[in-house]
Amino acid sequence: MEELKQKVYEANMLLPKYQLVTFTWGNVSEIDRKTGYFVIKPSGVEYDKLKPEDMVVMDLEGNKIEGEYNPSSDTPTHLEIYRGLPKVTGIVHTHSPWGTSWAQAGRGIPCYGTTHADYMYGEIPCVRNLTKEEIDEAYEKNTGVLIVDYFKEKEYMAMPAVLCKNHGVFTWGKDAHEAVHNAVVLEEVAKMAAQTEMINPDVKPAPQELQDKHYYRKHGPNAYYGQK
Amino acid sequence: MEELKQKVYEANMLLPKYQLVTFTWGNVSEIDRKTGYFVIKPSGVEYDKLKPEDMVVMDLEGNKIEGEYNPSSDTPTHLEIYRGLPKVTGIVHTHSPWGTSWAQAGRGIPCYGTTHADYMYGEIPCVRNLTKEEIDEAYEKNTGVLIVDYFKEKEYMAMPAVLCKNHGVFTWGKDAHEAVHNAVVLEEVAKMAAQTEMINPDVKPAPQELQDKHYYRKHGPNAYYGQK
Amino acid sequence: MEELKQKVYEANMLLPKYQLVTFTWGNVSEIDRKTGYFVIKPSGVEYDKLKPEDMVVMDLEGNKIEGEYNPSSDTPTHLEIYRGLPKVTGIVHTHSPWGTSWAQAGRGIPCYGTTHADYMYGEIPCVRNLTKEEIDEAYEKNTGVLIVDYFKEKEYMAMPAVLCKNHGVFTWGKDAHEAVHNAVVLEEVAKMAAQTEMINPDVKPAPQELQDKHYYRKHGPNAYYGQK
Amino acid sequence: MEELKQKVYEANMLLPKYQLVTFTWGNVSEIDRKTGYFVIKPSGVEYDKLKPEDMVVMDLEGNKIEGEYNPSSDTPTHLEIYRGLPKVTGIVHTHSPWGTSWAQAGRGIPCYGTTHADYMYGEIPCVRNLTKEEIDEAYEKNTGVLIVDYFKEKEYMAMPAVLCKNHGVFTWGKDAHEAVHNAVVLEEVAKMAAQTEMINPDVKPAPQELQDKHYYRKHGPNAYYGQK
Repeated sequence: MEELKQKVYEANMLLPKYQLVTFTWGNVSEIDRKTGYFVIKPSGVEYDKLKPEDMVVMDLEGNKIEGEYNPSSDTPTHLEIYRGLPKVTGIVHTHSPWGTSWAQAGRGIPCYGTTHADYMYGEIPCVRNLTKEEIDEAYEKNTGVLIVDYFKEKEYMAMPAVLCKNHGVFTWGKDAHEAVHNAVVLEEVAKMAAQTEMINPDVKPAPQELQDKHYYRKHGPNAYYGQK
Repeated sequence: MEELKQKVYEANMLLPKYQLVTFTWGNVSEIDRKTGYFVIKPSGVEYDKLKPEDMVVMDLEGNKIEGEYNPSSDTPTHLEIYRGLPKVTGIVHTHSPWGTSWAQAGRGIPCYGTTHADYMYGEIPCVRNLTKEEIDEAYEKNTGVLIVDYFKEKEYMAMPAVLCKNHGVFTWGKDAHEAVHNAVVLEEVAKMAAQTEMINPDVKPAPQELQDKHYYRKHGPNAYYGQK
Repeated sequence: MEELKQKVYEANMLLPKYQLVTFTWGNVSEIDRKTGYFVIKPSGVEYDKLKPEDMVVMDLEGNKIEGEYNPSSDTPTHLEIYRGLPKVTGIVHTHSPWGTSWAQAGRGIPCYGTTHADYMYGEIPCVRNLTKEEIDEAYEKNTGVLIVDYFKEKEYMAMPAVLCKNHGVFTWGKDAHEAVHNAVVLEEVAKMAAQTEMINPDVKPAPQELQDKHYYRKHGPNAYYGQK
Repeated sequence: MEELKQKVYEANMLLPKYQLVTFTWGNVSEIDRKTGYFVIKPSGVEYDKLKPEDMVVMDLEGNKIEGEYNPSSDTPTHLEIYRGLPKVTGIVHTHSPWGTSWAQAGRGIPCYGTTHADYMYGEIPCVRNLTKEEIDEAYEKNTGVLIVDYFKEKEYMAMPAVLCKNHGVFTWGKDAHEAVHNAVVLEEVAKMAAQTEMINPDVKPAPQELQDKHYYRKHGPNAYYGQK
């Protein structure tokens, strides 16, 4: 657990490094699938005061196993995603500016090019608002339920990102570090997609064969990018 | 007073840190409600030459109590706000770029998402231009009078920010530091709102129940965000 | 002259500091009105290799008085401005991104707010393209002639900036440092004006009485901003 | 070869310095025209871990001559350009945000001003998508073939840049360093062109005589910019 706390601490500290957060507007977690415990940032603690030992250890029933602080207020969302999407091992939540602007606009991000296709297969979806009943009953939990409902029958490791309407961004991956990596990709792709539409309001998504080529040169059995 | 001067100095120095000011285009003050004295930045002094002892102490009649320099030329605006809005203890004025762009556009900033709703309840208002008579009579004072008139019957601690048409931004809080925090929030929210409209020109504000949820999970008796 | 070379060197080094230039795309000069000599950056020398002794001394006939290097290729423009606008003592040329975008768009920058009015009185003009004949005859000189023709009967110290269509920006002031200051103001104002029109395409300039108030609280016999 | 590896390493390290790349999204190569060997960045290695000895040496048949790592996955594109455009000695590929936004928009970048004309003569072209057959057969190689087909009968050293639709940017030059310089110019010009159209949707390219003047004052027998 000390090792995981260190890892999650380091992944959290990448959020300000990549300028994905202002103040405390973001959090990272990672789960140990053997024990079912996950480690998450404490709520409302500033990044420049954060220490590895401040990380909070939770179980999948929502019980705090270890930690001085309250866990992130978004903890029930992380928990639902870990329960419903079993291949997910790390999760990031941010209000990164361009991603959040798309979420506020209520639009998914079309795949306009290979930067996007290299990491995420197809349009990055924007899930609907929760109803008043869902908010009142259990806002953070139901945010996770909504995300899981959308993704559970899909190849969610090939689309490791979602926009929550009028709210912000969740990304995931095979560990906390990859989830942060995907959060950086999403912000860059969100910025370029908005600029693309500004330059050409009638633009169409990239051809499917180009999207396929880039995604599969980095993922799956025929990947040849990098040193693998 | 020395302690307050130090606090106000530090709060002023956060403005360049958060890239809210160019040159000397901003100022921060905080009031000691017991004595009725407030401390404010001197006028036109560059941030990288500013020292705690340069801060100017004023009373609520506009008399300089202590200080070598002239106080900020916006001092009469701060003074009117302290007189008219008794819960305000710290005030910030900036020309931060996105906030000022909305002010120049003459539009309030709609609440498009939870980043906004977490800190400010509803649309951030843009108050009207002063008339020629109000400008000629007492420009800076009447800017404060206009702000107080707009807010005095409202829950102004739940909307700690205002745009002054064709001018810039004022924010406030329970101390100078919180007022700066709100100035950072406003700039981030202003940027994302403009980008949101660029991505979806027909966008509507966030649902009221979502705004309520986020505002009240951070404020008031039922707040549960953070470590309180 | 050594002192002036040092001053002009320091003013040149502010251009990269304020992110107004990429590579060598800018230059600053200052004139000693007693001798009629002016000091200017050498042509095409990178900022991080620039030294005070590299500055070039010129007279108003275009003769090099001192210096190892060729002077900036824009030297004839500076020279014409010094000859035609006798109150100008420092000049800056940049391709700063937002100012240049307005110049490329062929539009003057309307005065949308007090940030602009604090330093520059009215719309920042965009002068026309030179004709083919003017370009072929003496491009850089005729750029200066065009600027002087536009400004010589006007209060050019109250509008110390001009856009050259499809080209870039010139600013001036009572010394090189003030000219750089005005170049920073222009870039900030240009950015905010574009954002203002993006937020409200039907926006109008700031009311004249507000422009007057801000300009004259900083300039002229009734100024009261700062420590003067 | 050790010298060339050092040079190519240094040119690669300029990409993050000039903020042209996120993660590993870019690569630089340079060819030694005497031996026909070229040096290129290894695939998928992070910039902050890159060392000169990691560079990969290739011949123009696509054989690895030296190096521990796999070469950049874009190596076949570089190779085709070196074969087809014999004056090219250095090549850069990036996904720099503004250049990529134009590529995603499927539009060439019009020459709106002298910043562009100083380095690149005319509109920066955007080449078409590859067909499904071209992608399936040899994606990276055919990207190079397409670029060579477009440029081989043209003055390609006067237009050392191309956008690949829905993908990204390639630039070149007389060595790796100049190719990087052109990549920086392209990104700055791409940003300003988009902002220019935002400020004036009906804008036209700069007059031909102004483009000619700026290009030829820096290039060719009558150049007079700089210290040459």
